[in-house]
Amino acid sequence: MRPVSLSGDHIQIQAFLDRYDTFLLDCDGVIWSGEELLPGAAEAINSLRKQGKTVIFITNNSTESRASFCRRFEKFGIPVHIDDVFTSAYITASYLSQDQRLAPPRDEVFILGSEGIENELSAADIKHLGGTDPAFQRDITLEDFKDLAATSTLSSSVGAVVVGVDLQLNYLKLCQAVTYIRNGATFLATNTDATFPIFGTVFPAAGSVAAAVSRASDTQPLLMGKPGPHMMDAILTRHEDLDRSPTCVVGDGLDTDIKFGVEQMLGTLLVLTGVSSRQDMECTDPKYAPEAFVEQLADLVL
Amino acid sequence: MRPVSLSGDHIQIQAFLDRYDTFLLDCDGVIWSGEELLPGAAEAINSLRKQGKTVIFITNNSTESRASFCRRFEKFGIPVHIDDVFTSAYITASYLSQDQRLAPPRDEVFILGSEGIENELSAADIKHLGGTDPAFQRDITLEDFKDLAATSTLSSSVGAVVVGVDLQLNYLKLCQAVTYIRNGATFLATNTDATFPIFGTVFPAAGSVAAAVSRASDTQPLLMGKPGPHMMDAILTRHEDLDRSPTCVVGDGLDTDIKFGVEQMLGTLLVLTGVSSRQDMECTDPKYAPEAFVEQLADLVL
Repeated sequence: MRPVSLSGDHIQIQAFLDRYDTFLLDCDGVIWSGEELLPGAAEAINSLRKQGKTVIFITNNSTESRASFCRRFEKFGIPVHIDDVFTSAYITASYLSQDQRLAPPRDEVFILGSEGIENELSAADIKHLGGTDPAFQRDITLEDFKDLAATSTLSSSVGAVVVGVDLQLNYLKLCQAVTYIRNGATFLATNTDATFPIFGTVFPAAGSVAAAVSRASDTQPLLMGKPGPHMMDAILTRHEDLDRSPTCVVGDGLDTDIKFGVEQMLGTLLVLTGVSSRQDMECTDPKYAPEAFVEQLADLVL
Repeated sequence: MRPVSLSGDHIQIQAFLDRYDTFLLDCDGVIWSGEELLPGAAEAINSLRKQGKTVIFITNNSTESRASFCRRFEKFGIPVHIDDVFTSAYITASYLSQDQRLAPPRDEVFILGSEGIENELSAADIKHLGGTDPAFQRDITLEDFKDLAATSTLSSSVGAVVVGVDLQLNYLKLCQAVTYIRNGATFLATNTDATFPIFGTVFPAAGSVAAAVSRASDTQPLLMGKPGPHMMDAILTRHEDLDRSPTCVVGDGLDTDIKFGVEQMLGTLLVLTGVSSRQDMECTDPKYAPEAFVEQLADLVL
């Protein structure tokens, strides 16, 4: 079925909203773009809550911790409880502390990614190295190649490598991540988004970094964020009585948010303020098309 | 047909060598590994030349210029003429100056790669930026994202992006490369090797860096090195009377050297001192299996 365009049609919008009592909102490209709140996004969240809807935030952004996300919401005048924020870094930490519990002697995680992953792993009492550690912020040397080949500079307790977007990406860290994986560590990606939206365009996301690691390690990552199932597992752990059929995902990415919604048997609404365009929607596999779309989140305010 | 094991069988080795008068030798993993000459490699080259064979060097390594490769050969006591050295950086420069000539106002190249590419582009009088320029050796800032989105810090004359292995890879350069390509620049990869061999193991090569760029730009690169056809075009330009049937590729990579040889209708010999193992050879598509293999290049000395 072709996605329905809702923007400007108050009757259709109300009918759509009436079908759901819980909204799972993506953040980047839906609520904000970079450091800027998208116009009317706070009002839209407020309006949903006024109508008695539960609003939960789900993001593949692994650069910040949940606590840091809460501060950002606060800055934008949107009150949010930390238990209602699900980030791919948090999902990764949950997965590693519950589902695939790392056990000694291989209970440490090497991070090719940002502070958000470090903070969430720390919060879950998981040991980690790499990430933003200044010791890794340098050019590789011939000595490094030799030491990595001999594994003499590798930690023997690393059992997993977590890859996310890394604004301090360098070749030394890429080599470390690849070598740990080639030596048997589990390869997890916070998400496999090709890009993230900011300032009206897109830049390389975790999926781009993970592609480099995958190619050199000849290994596919375990996907933590959307469209994988672990985000839903984590939501259901916190919100035990959440019912899928009156729950709708609102996102800007066809391959992530909408695919996640379809596979988790949830409602789906695409917003056109981020990664996916109207043209992308027309070209996508109809199985993974959204039920409906709006130009921007603000269009849901009646 | 199953590849024939030649090591230790002098009669089979002589029969194999007798079939060819030109040998196209890969370098990394065949002649040397990192900074170390592989045992007996110089003697093997010497022995081939003594038997009247023409020896040409073909490498996907784009980190050094041909002149720099010649100095390395000299250091190892192997006399080599610059016209007999074909590197993927040289092929890239040839391609951009002859086949797909860049014209003003888009005649500049952004490099995500090493000095070898810079030197070969300079030698072919092609303007370039990026690469090892210290101005790009820093962390990305929020201001950079804003400027890149507005294209205000991009050169309007960039018509192509060349990606190779980059030991000074960082997120800022990755973003620049991806943004130029998303804005219409041609995307060339010196090669798409997943890894390169050094110190008895392997590390991320140009194919790993190109995979990150590909994923974020949603664009496949034009492949310059092996197994693409441009390496052969360049060899035939320099060696006009080279005949394919008595020519044999000797390399350590099934996906690069051997595939190149098969597709160019040349003889193929795998050495097991680099990327591909005996097990890889058993698992590979029989169409792209080598005719024969040796443990090491030195095994060709009789």
